[in-house]
Amino acid sequence: MIGHTTNVRVRYRDTDQMGVVYHGVYLEFFETGRTELLRTCGMAYSNIERGGLLLPVLEATLQIQRPARYDELIAVTATMHEPTGIRLLIQYQIHRGDLLLVSGSTTHVFTTADGMKPVRPPAGFLEVLRQGNQSAS
Amino acid sequence: MIGHTTNVRVRYRDTDQMGVVYHGVYLEFFETGRTELLRTCGMAYSNIERGGLLLPVLEATLQIQRPARYDELIAVTATMHEPTGIRLLIQYQIHRGDLLLVSGSTTHVFTTADGMKPVRPPAGFLEVLRQGNQSAS
Amino acid sequence: MIGHTTNVRVRYRDTDQMGVVYHGVYLEFFETGRTELLRTCGMAYSNIERGGLLLPVLEATLQIQRPARYDELIAVTATMHEPTGIRLLIQYQIHRGDLLLVSGSTTHVFTTADGMKPVRPPAGFLEVLRQGNQSAS
Amino acid sequence: MIGHTTNVRVRYRDTDQMGVVYHGVYLEFFETGRTELLRTCGMAYSNIERGGLLLPVLEATLQIQRPARYDELIAVTATMHEPTGIRLLIQYQIHRGDLLLVSGSTTHVFTTADGMKPVRPPAGFLEVLRQGNQSAS
Repeated sequence: MIGHTTNVRVRYRDTDQMGVVYHGVYLEFFETGRTELLRTCGMAYSNIERGGLLLPVLEATLQIQRPARYDELIAVTATMHEPTGIRLLIQYQIHRGDLLLVSGSTTHVFTTADGMKPVRPPAGFLEVLRQGNQSAS
Repeated sequence: MIGHTTNVRVRYRDTDQMGVVYHGVYLEFFETGRTELLRTCGMAYSNIERGGLLLPVLEATLQIQRPARYDELIAVTATMHEPTGIRLLIQYQIHRGDLLLVSGSTTHVFTTADGMKPVRPPAGFLEVLRQGNQSAS
Repeated sequence: MIGHTTNVRVRYRDTDQMGVVYHGVYLEFFETGRTELLRTCGMAYSNIERGGLLLPVLEATLQIQRPARYDELIAVTATMHEPTGIRLLIQYQIHRGDLLLVSGSTTHVFTTADGMKPVRPPAGFLEVLRQGNQSAS
Repeated sequence: MIGHTTNVRVRYRDTDQMGVVYHGVYLEFFETGRTELLRTCGMAYSNIERGGLLLPVLEATLQIQRPARYDELIAVTATMHEPTGIRLLIQYQIHRGDLLLVSGSTTHVFTTADGMKPVRPPAGFLEVLRQGNQSAS
């Protein structure tokens, strides 16, 4: 397992008239967590695309325990396991201090640059995840 | 069960550089489907808020079979069952013609206007759902 | 001059915690007005891109007289003159009933598909604008 | 004059299928620049709202010299002068390294918490701007 935590500042744009973050925006916060997790693994997503692959989202889930609010500095933690098959599962938790606000997940698959053909994760990517598993055990 | 289908035109704003709709935007399309479903039930969400209640999202799920693309006119179908407890489950399917693109769900609970206290759904709301169930059986 | 009016329903996603539409969202409403104006002219923007051209935004302006609010059905009017040079100016007004809420403009230039080289507007496009000018005079 | 520069990472959500940042998103980047400028002045916007005032946007302008792209770390500089009347003008420049990408402005007015009545800027706020002017001269 590899994990990484990124701080995100809630913007006015992220709120709605309920006075809290619009629920769909948590998927954007997940994106930031995922991007920084991949960068930490030496696999910046911009490099994945430059290498001719995409990593689209197939599924997403979201559970809101407590809403985040304007101007809060929240911590987005993304964790990733070595995939058993072709699908990659990333899990997220958003905290404000010690308090869990939101959890969720996204499922991805690597595809060719036209998005049409699923492919196996790059070997170097799997290697990083495997090393992460070892160092975590 | 009560259901309603609304057409949505995919905007440039909804796309990302993968050339398809950004995954989080499907939750916004779900919102449009849910809003028009509630309006059809005689329970416009703007009236729910004017009546001193909120209906925030507690959970959301999203499965993308095929992405929607710029300028497509897609059909968002939202369906709702009579709730057994306090939670309200709404399910969604997005089609382009006969082709299923995306499915998903949101779970809600009615709360007081400060968002702090869950409350039972309004009696009139349950009545509409009950009548929907009868007419569907 | 060619003009077209499109109705847009304000979504919850479009609001912020001020209880009104977030100012940047008016540019998205302008996009919808512009898209439908171009479609009316027989020049759907999706076809412009399929034809190997882009029409990016170079400049935008926005004046808010009164904010739009959740669930309002507002009318976005986009108007376009025959360009004197290479730049295309589109102007917008957003009304709720007879009341002017927001006005603004976007300036565009046609470019090659890589976005690097400005090009003259397609002849067919200018012809439509010229006919629009004649029928308006 | 008071100025402040904030770094912003371009997200996938910020791009569109042109492969660059969607033009309306620059107003969101301006928001981040403005928020951090106000915080630096000891006038965090969240505190302004807690103090019973709003600072809505009345006008916005945007000039795009070159687009920002996915995953770029861009610098948003916001500058503010002491207002001569009731309106507050904030100016923005977005750079990637030494290269100017986007410039623009927003015009604001302080209002009562219901957004209905324009009011003079708080005295403490003007004092900070006046001191900024002196230290810059």
